[in-house]
Amino acid sequence: MLNSLRVSAVAKSALLNNNLLSTISTPLLIQCKNNSTLSRKYIKRRALFNGSEDRKILASLRTNADSIVFDLEDGVAFNRKKEARVKVFNAIEKYDLGKREKAVRINCVSSGLAEDDLKSILPSSKLEALVITKVNSEKDIHFVCDMIDHLAPENVRKNIRLIACVESAMSLMNLKSICTSDPRVDALVFASEDYCADTGMIRTRSRKELTYARQALVAHAHAYNLQAIDLVCQDYKSDDILREECQEGKEYGFTGKQAIHPRQIDIIQEMFSPNKKDLEYARRILDGFKNHTSKGIGAFVLDGKMIDQPVVRWAEKLISRV
Amino acid sequence: MLNSLRVSAVAKSALLNNNLLSTISTPLLIQCKNNSTLSRKYIKRRALFNGSEDRKILASLRTNADSIVFDLEDGVAFNRKKEARVKVFNAIEKYDLGKREKAVRINCVSSGLAEDDLKSILPSSKLEALVITKVNSEKDIHFVCDMIDHLAPENVRKNIRLIACVESAMSLMNLKSICTSDPRVDALVFASEDYCADTGMIRTRSRKELTYARQALVAHAHAYNLQAIDLVCQDYKSDDILREECQEGKEYGFTGKQAIHPRQIDIIQEMFSPNKKDLEYARRILDGFKNHTSKGIGAFVLDGKMIDQPVVRWAEKLISRV
Amino acid sequence: MLNSLRVSAVAKSALLNNNLLSTISTPLLIQCKNNSTLSRKYIKRRALFNGSEDRKILASLRTNADSIVFDLEDGVAFNRKKEARVKVFNAIEKYDLGKREKAVRINCVSSGLAEDDLKSILPSSKLEALVITKVNSEKDIHFVCDMIDHLAPENVRKNIRLIACVESAMSLMNLKSICTSDPRVDALVFASEDYCADTGMIRTRSRKELTYARQALVAHAHAYNLQAIDLVCQDYKSDDILREECQEGKEYGFTGKQAIHPRQIDIIQEMFSPNKKDLEYARRILDGFKNHTSKGIGAFVLDGKMIDQPVVRWAEKLISRV
Repeated sequence: MLNSLRVSAVAKSALLNNNLLSTISTPLLIQCKNNSTLSRKYIKRRALFNGSEDRKILASLRTNADSIVFDLEDGVAFNRKKEARVKVFNAIEKYDLGKREKAVRINCVSSGLAEDDLKSILPSSKLEALVITKVNSEKDIHFVCDMIDHLAPENVRKNIRLIACVESAMSLMNLKSICTSDPRVDALVFASEDYCADTGMIRTRSRKELTYARQALVAHAHAYNLQAIDLVCQDYKSDDILREECQEGKEYGFTGKQAIHPRQIDIIQEMFSPNKKDLEYARRILDGFKNHTSKGIGAFVLDGKMIDQPVVRWAEKLISRV
Repeated sequence: MLNSLRVSAVAKSALLNNNLLSTISTPLLIQCKNNSTLSRKYIKRRALFNGSEDRKILASLRTNADSIVFDLEDGVAFNRKKEARVKVFNAIEKYDLGKREKAVRINCVSSGLAEDDLKSILPSSKLEALVITKVNSEKDIHFVCDMIDHLAPENVRKNIRLIACVESAMSLMNLKSICTSDPRVDALVFASEDYCADTGMIRTRSRKELTYARQALVAHAHAYNLQAIDLVCQDYKSDDILREECQEGKEYGFTGKQAIHPRQIDIIQEMFSPNKKDLEYARRILDGFKNHTSKGIGAFVLDGKMIDQPVVRWAEKLISRV
Repeated sequence: MLNSLRVSAVAKSALLNNNLLSTISTPLLIQCKNNSTLSRKYIKRRALFNGSEDRKILASLRTNADSIVFDLEDGVAFNRKKEARVKVFNAIEKYDLGKREKAVRINCVSSGLAEDDLKSILPSSKLEALVITKVNSEKDIHFVCDMIDHLAPENVRKNIRLIACVESAMSLMNLKSICTSDPRVDALVFASEDYCADTGMIRTRSRKELTYARQALVAHAHAYNLQAIDLVCQDYKSDDILREECQEGKEYGFTGKQAIHPRQIDIIQEMFSPNKKDLEYARRILDGFKNHTSKGIGAFVLDGKMIDQPVVRWAEKLISRV
């Protein structure tokens, strides 16, 4: 009865690197509207789509993604980082994304590039989220938060959401301290390609080699009220494989999924949306809860089933993602 | 050669809620006789069967379950809790269960109902075990233990066994501290339906989405000498699916399994029983160990194989479950 | 693109116990050359092969194993331990193993036999590695390290590598503290038979019951720069099953695999070797890295892809295993 999904979807794409088929090598990220942050103000974030060149920025605006991620990391060649930072800052300032979130993907802290990334973009009062790559421990989050607290406009600095990418075995060791490092942490992303490079693992069609890493990430995310964004589907031409991966991701408890190509966005967003039956049931739960708590009653009965806190929380989460 | 099973079986059933097919929605719990508590006095517990209405209490007495669990949680409608507490207390006092354990399933600590549950039943000197629902951390165990130490008759309070239900991602985060919170903790139960509701997971026929949670629970249980009770088989009409799930549970190291219907009890208890060959081998190990330790020899050879502490411990556990 | 394998292979065999088909019951250990210890001096270790009787020692020398493990544990009957210690010490001193590592497998610390094992063999200046069985916590490692620091010749004591066997649920609980207990810890081994005995698990052909334990071990090993040696393939007559298990082990991130029979060694070593294409790519990465760092540039572009620290580290590891 509660077999519902964490719903939402965010799409992220990368800057096309001139020398590479980066539609393949650089994933889009599909993530979800997920009010896993019930205690926080909810920022709508159904799709991320990123880029640092004007052409890609414009392309990303044409997608349905709730959240647009301007990329400064793998989608940008090393000798273009400086130029990209300026373009990304301008794009954040310039474009009206409507309800869609404005996010930026920065280089990892250990690369030495993150500091300049942050100096360039944090002055904007229109930045809503940061995708932090290769987070190895809570120290990486603290570094970014310190930068935010010093450089972001005072009225927005507490609202910038952090999306932490898990890309190494060490990151998996430190999941708990990463999740609890700062209240701005809002989502975990499983970055399978870099995770496999770090551990010498080989990704297969069965994905069974990633069971422990993916399911550990999901469990930690839900324990600490974060979104959990699944790995990218590499077979970007096959809708069937994409749907199969989305279905598995939902079953595992992921709230969204990265994508490697814009054409994956709609399928992912559809797959990670709550179904009508669950939504209706959730609404009745919240109505009943409202009625009964106003009478001083905590738990109550609906359709013969006792509704207690965990069920109410499930319903709240579901509704928040619509 | 040591491919033997943790054996035992406990059956738990729920009060039929008048408005619901609660034979489906409220699981029976099949658990095992498992002397995972080799250092503790062994309380026989092969089957739990619970209920708070006289009719269900009488029904539970007709099963082969080693342990009878009188339910105060999901099997009891919210407006009947008070009445149920009286009936359960009377049942504990009144019925002679022979070798079968007398247990009570209480509402979770965070519901605010557990305190009244415990005040009602702890005064009985005949209570042997508590099934604690939705244990999120060691604090929930400490709360129950404080109540026991204040309200249970002094001669029984140290012997009440605690069976902790893992039903949330946070519970999984805190497995170690839950296992080691109090020497009375005797078993962990994996409650799949609530776990899925808490994490947004979707339970499937393959059960692969639950691999991490179930196997983490088993590993912790064995590390700290506790029983591990597997999820309920929802297809209560199919013996084949039930046997398949039992087999998998045994392979994973579970010592028992919850059930949703009384007809599942015998199959589960059969499946979670040690086989004759293993038992005979275990007896020879313990005989040899006795002989050699009396001569001051620690390790010894049996059938050409050196028998050391881990093997002796395996044999002791197996024998204790007969 | 980085779907490469941790490569290497080590072969271990056991002393044939006179009363037992120990080619079956006592596994060979196939492990890998793995410079997971990039910050440490690299000791070549592609195959372990062990024995405590002259006959087996000579047999082990005829294998291609990079590392020869002289066994004092399960391969040696209890009443022959004393005699075996002398033979093993003499073998370490006497034989020239060329590039192959000289290792000794000792009884577990809790058996009370490890102390005498270590007193006998540590005085040799030719010992290169210890396989420590049934490591339950960092205390077992500390015990062995204290013995090394007191008994091993001063010029070698810092270079003795420790290979820790994970054989219990408690060991799994303490993985992190075992991995970080001493800089001499160089590899983890998953000992499936004893692990199953300790936890009541039943090993199956699918191996899915061991997913959590094996993948947790691999993640910890890579997080702390250790080798990860997979379970033994029990079907020692089937090359197909062996290859299937090797393939899975590589996909999971294991760097090597135990073997139960000398005939498994070559297949395992072949399967756990890096392929030419990956090696060539890794060499180009390291060349590029050398060129660019000499110019003061950290990250650089190769074939249109930005090469940063994690990729360079991947390349270094791969090259070190050739």
